[in-house]
Amino acid sequence: MPRVYNFSAGPAMLPEYVLKDAAAEMLDYKGTGMSVMEMSHRSPAFTEIITSAERNLRQLMQIPDNYKVLFLQGGGSTQFAAIPMNLSLPKNGKADYIVTGSWSEKAYKEAARFIDAKVVASSKATNFDHIPDVSDLPIREDADYVYICENETIHGTTFPELPNTKGKVLVSDQSSMFLSKPVDVSKYGVIFGGVQKNIGPAGMAIVIIREDLLPEDKIDGVPTMLNYRVHADKDSLYNTPPCYTIYICGKVFRYLQAQGGLEAMAIRNAEKAKILYDAIDSSNLFKTAVTNVADRSLMNVPFVTGNPDLDKKFVEEAALAGLWNLKGHRSVGGLRASIYNAVPREGVIALVEFMKKFEKENA
Amino acid sequence: MPRVYNFSAGPAMLPEYVLKDAAAEMLDYKGTGMSVMEMSHRSPAFTEIITSAERNLRQLMQIPDNYKVLFLQGGGSTQFAAIPMNLSLPKNGKADYIVTGSWSEKAYKEAARFIDAKVVASSKATNFDHIPDVSDLPIREDADYVYICENETIHGTTFPELPNTKGKVLVSDQSSMFLSKPVDVSKYGVIFGGVQKNIGPAGMAIVIIREDLLPEDKIDGVPTMLNYRVHADKDSLYNTPPCYTIYICGKVFRYLQAQGGLEAMAIRNAEKAKILYDAIDSSNLFKTAVTNVADRSLMNVPFVTGNPDLDKKFVEEAALAGLWNLKGHRSVGGLRASIYNAVPREGVIALVEFMKKFEKENA
Repeated sequence: MPRVYNFSAGPAMLPEYVLKDAAAEMLDYKGTGMSVMEMSHRSPAFTEIITSAERNLRQLMQIPDNYKVLFLQGGGSTQFAAIPMNLSLPKNGKADYIVTGSWSEKAYKEAARFIDAKVVASSKATNFDHIPDVSDLPIREDADYVYICENETIHGTTFPELPNTKGKVLVSDQSSMFLSKPVDVSKYGVIFGGVQKNIGPAGMAIVIIREDLLPEDKIDGVPTMLNYRVHADKDSLYNTPPCYTIYICGKVFRYLQAQGGLEAMAIRNAEKAKILYDAIDSSNLFKTAVTNVADRSLMNVPFVTGNPDLDKKFVEEAALAGLWNLKGHRSVGGLRASIYNAVPREGVIALVEFMKKFEKENA
Repeated sequence: MPRVYNFSAGPAMLPEYVLKDAAAEMLDYKGTGMSVMEMSHRSPAFTEIITSAERNLRQLMQIPDNYKVLFLQGGGSTQFAAIPMNLSLPKNGKADYIVTGSWSEKAYKEAARFIDAKVVASSKATNFDHIPDVSDLPIREDADYVYICENETIHGTTFPELPNTKGKVLVSDQSSMFLSKPVDVSKYGVIFGGVQKNIGPAGMAIVIIREDLLPEDKIDGVPTMLNYRVHADKDSLYNTPPCYTIYICGKVFRYLQAQGGLEAMAIRNAEKAKILYDAIDSSNLFKTAVTNVADRSLMNVPFVTGNPDLDKKFVEEAALAGLWNLKGHRSVGGLRASIYNAVPREGVIALVEFMKKFEKENA
């Protein structure tokens, strides 16, 4: 079967070049006589893999030297607990959350189990269809950080501008926008995300944290494996890391460098998103709840026909046309196209053409 | 380069058959037009992968129906906290540990951060060179469980018989002996282990837990991602699981079934270990600290020449002969051969021949 266009929200499409390379090296990585899956995480070959992965990620994102990069297990969901445990529990035990969709809400609820977490802005009343005004929020004087999910995968919104944190540390979940465009890392205290959307196979989160925010030592009540200091001091080798995942992510980093880096990805991603949003905006059948153009995610585009039966038909017929995983998240229904870095422009054009054909046939 | 014999303690050798299969399916898994790495974890194709992996593991280990199988991130190390948090924190807050090496000691120390953990037997005084008598230990009346690391990867010991827990729940870390022989699951409350030694690529732990031991609900102070109930209720799909790792482990399960199951592996592993221990016992150069034959691990065989320079020379020359990763763990030095399921008998014979040659040359 030829490769299909895969619009899954994650795990998601990876560059074919990377997959071919990984397949070719499966039984013998660069003359070692073994697969990367079989390699001791303390071997010279794997040391080169993990250090070059970090080096290339640092180069891509222009990560300043006073930030640590951690490769951790447990996905984004584990960080929902680790963030308050590391950044707030040893300090004031307070943090302010901006809730703009399912993922920031989930992070808030988990944090509230450990610290005094407060919602300082929310778009829940209108089903998370926009990003609230975040220019002058009632940030608490003693909040240890302000939390955002910068791109909401399910609701399809993204922050057009970062919130005014009034001097507090900004923590951002970038899972579904990681490496989709340049970001100024120095504006954040912590950037984190699961890699299974825009980077590599599921099973790892990357945490980029300003060194002064690392806890000093063990923290009462916090599992050692959730302590950022432990992993930072051991360069993500406190225990056996998810080696093969790091290896594939490293290949994606190099691939992105060769493609022109994040500036080039930002241009391509904006073009791809424009093609899709233009098709939705000019359609009489398809619509998106995110009417404020500035708030629209360039990665995850949810839309509906307004008729659940027709949505279902769309998903099925699209799959027959080689366009896969266009079903909206089970919590909201409808349709969704995730158009991460690895989804080619041709895939978006094919989707838009299919949408036009479908609209005509179902007018 | 031809494939080498890899004696790494983990990540470790995998069956060549499995790697070839994975390479062949990398760009198109069974006509889906995508890699397993790119697949939504809620897609029909991945649902079949995870359910058949669990089914085949249950068949291999003859896991009774009243046990849940969890595929979790964070490796064995995360379970060192999760075990006391799930099994003891909501109950009496007490557990008894048998300390027979680095890994059970590490587990004990982590548990002691959350509950009243007590060492009821230890072989530390003699550098963990044997398994203590565990037939009549001072198990506390209100201990929530008794903990063992059934095979100590670094010190090369294994329990010849399970401890008399006096009716308490037995928890066993089987990381480095997972699937190496049949075990009677019904004798345990929990069996867990990282998969990166005897099963698949690093980045996952498998937890086999008797249903009545699952916590009833959320537990105060315990991260949601460390709660076994949460993962059990969602069949390991509470969040995105390490999909590709599950896929490779599933292939290994099927491979082991085709090889005759765990009974066949036990016979082969005993033969392989005998070849190596016989060589050590009959050598004038090499010796092992584990003199009690019944306590010897069939998976991890640490040995020394008694001369660190000679140990180093051995590791280097062995590698040149295609025998890799024979260095002992950095905490104890010396030599170690891990001879997991995927290390062929021919590899052990090649190692023994090399040992004889080395002994002759360095007499």
